Amino acid sequence: MAVTYELVKTCKQTGARAGIIHTPNGSFETPMFMPVGTLATVKAMSPEELKEIGAGIILSNTYHLFLRPGHDIVKEAGGLHKFMNWDQAILTDSGGFQVFSLSNLRKIKEEGVEFRSHLNGEKLFLSPEKATEIQNALGADIIMAFDECPPYPADYEYVKDSLERTTRWAKRCLDAHRNTDKQALFGIVQGGMYKDLRIESAKQLVDLDFPGYAIGGLSVGEEADIMYEVLEYTTPELPKDKARYLMGVGAPENLVEGVIRGIDMFDCVLPTRIARNGTVFTSKGKLVIRNAQYARDFQPIDSDCACYVCRNYTRAYIRHLIKCNEIFGMRLTTYHNLYYLINMMKQVRQAILEDRLGDFQKHFYAIRQ
Amino acid sequence: MAVTYELVKTCKQTGARAGIIHTPNGSFETPMFMPVGTLATVKAMSPEELKEIGAGIILSNTYHLFLRPGHDIVKEAGGLHKFMNWDQAILTDSGGFQVFSLSNLRKIKEEGVEFRSHLNGEKLFLSPEKATEIQNALGADIIMAFDECPPYPADYEYVKDSLERTTRWAKRCLDAHRNTDKQALFGIVQGGMYKDLRIESAKQLVDLDFPGYAIGGLSVGEEADIMYEVLEYTTPELPKDKARYLMGVGAPENLVEGVIRGIDMFDCVLPTRIARNGTVFTSKGKLVIRNAQYARDFQPIDSDCACYVCRNYTRAYIRHLIKCNEIFGMRLTTYHNLYYLINMMKQVRQAILEDRLGDFQKHFYAIRQ
Repeated sequence: MAVTYELVKTCKQTGARAGIIHTPNGSFETPMFMPVGTLATVKAMSPEELKEIGAGIILSNTYHLFLRPGHDIVKEAGGLHKFMNWDQAILTDSGGFQVFSLSNLRKIKEEGVEFRSHLNGEKLFLSPEKATEIQNALGADIIMAFDECPPYPADYEYVKDSLERTTRWAKRCLDAHRNTDKQALFGIVQGGMYKDLRIESAKQLVDLDFPGYAIGGLSVGEEADIMYEVLEYTTPELPKDKARYLMGVGAPENLVEGVIRGIDMFDCVLPTRIARNGTVFTSKGKLVIRNAQYARDFQPIDSDCACYVCRNYTRAYIRHLIKCNEIFGMRLTTYHNLYYLINMMKQVRQAILEDRLGDFQKHFYAIRQ
Repeated sequence: MAVTYELVKTCKQTGARAGIIHTPNGSFETPMFMPVGTLATVKAMSPEELKEIGAGIILSNTYHLFLRPGHDIVKEAGGLHKFMNWDQAILTDSGGFQVFSLSNLRKIKEEGVEFRSHLNGEKLFLSPEKATEIQNALGADIIMAFDECPPYPADYEYVKDSLERTTRWAKRCLDAHRNTDKQALFGIVQGGMYKDLRIESAKQLVDLDFPGYAIGGLSVGEEADIMYEVLEYTTPELPKDKARYLMGVGAPENLVEGVIRGIDMFDCVLPTRIARNGTVFTSKGKLVIRNAQYARDFQPIDSDCACYVCRNYTRAYIRHLIKCNEIFGMRLTTYHNLYYLINMMKQVRQAILEDRLGDFQKHFYAIRQ
């Protein structure tokens, strides 16, 4: 198998998992937050910096790379790893989410989705076969089934029809997948916020025996408590010997709660997007570094943080750079936010290994302001 | 003296100088191209990257730092070196050039210049004393006299009056300078494109015995041949034991020609500005990497270049990033362009040491397309 999940430890306090995921381009410890490199670059970061902060895997995007530069060019370059100079693991999203969130005038049929490019309005078509073909050309270690991410809220009948189509599409992705020895295709559980539908979706996908499973259709506008509840009844349906990936979730508290509910992998544009706007994570909560109160604040972003940024730069300097739209400001805030999440996940993993993730969770909330 | 110039070798073929400039924050070899860090950051670059490419000195800007974040904040941070995490030499421009090129509604009086901020229209005033006070607060190793950079073309009488005022202002800068043991104040030769006025300006400033001299008011729209001619009759007026700095010049051919005419230091925003727009230097001339012809070009920017960018990334990838306005694209083109110029200056220096800069110059033009 291209990708395997090794369970290292289950936390006695919480049931959370510490593991290792093995891929053709290296192994990484879980739980893990995966930085998002939408267009074959994690915005503002170099590959060396990503390694420095401990990102063993990054995510990239089928929809975006299909539009620019085109998967044929990436293939001709020798695949995504070589194209972007990244020799560790990569996961590509199937494009399903983007087709539903970014594109215009989409028309869902059994065959696939007709939509217009968000860039130039060009009429395009993605199907399970096409999304898999593109991902085979890109060559990521983990690729995703083409799914429909239903809106929130959505009525029961719509979600039921949608998840059943998603299962049929998942089957077609498996059939279309041409590179099973080097790329692992993960299925995506849907089913909205309906317990029986989530369980049904999970069962159908588990029957198809994917090497790993994602939970999609969360973090789409629902309250955090609803998301946690969905996780509570969904993850038990997934096999213990496969990786579990919660898509599109990146707020620190959501990561902690997700891990406690059995998740191994997360991704989200949030930490890099808010970084570029001048919002940074700290152990005490978020900090809007643009604010005037930091103009003469010569402390690091987070005194408890050991990252390159916190060792070398003050809030006053970073605020100045962000206020002036300087690229280096965005580099520093992005670096820090990614380091913060990846380092937090290391601490979470250590707590799992020591059967004290429940204590960690209490402390995590206690020091927030 | 805060800053000294050590003459190492004069090229027998051309008369060009190889030297070392010693500052309180380290020494650097000349001729040198100084990357411009207008707002206390060389756009898109980290301090570590600047060291990696061999930049022993960078430039920053009085006018811009006066406006944002304010020199008082930089002083409170412990000075510019500490504020921006740069422990090698810094030169600050006096703000004279920016007052004349960027600001609105400026009014030149003997006392100084009244102008409006290019950011918010605020009424401000800079004088020799104020520009020196700001530069003393910033704490750069080399600071510049506050001068007027006359427009081009400008008539003889205007330029004559202007250069005489610039000399009076230079004297006032010397008198106002409060930190002579740690910061060297350089004078700026003006005089437009008039031989007798350039010589007069140089003589007046040399009489004031500055620790180094700049040539200002060039690269303001005149033909390159005119600039070369001005250098030919101006540099001989400057003392051999002091550094000579040609302001605002950064095109590769201008650097080679400037060194041959006795210049030691250069600065310009050109290499970093064109980089962000997707134009890169190569040994064969400029290359507009945005162009469609590079979409499937899997060669490095310059096959003769040994920089981080050329060792790891293809034209196709960099084109893709620049087309998508990705920050990492601007990082790569900026890194390469600065490396190109600084490495070219190293080669120029080596040619001087081996008395063959004339041969270097011939080869430099021969391989350009």
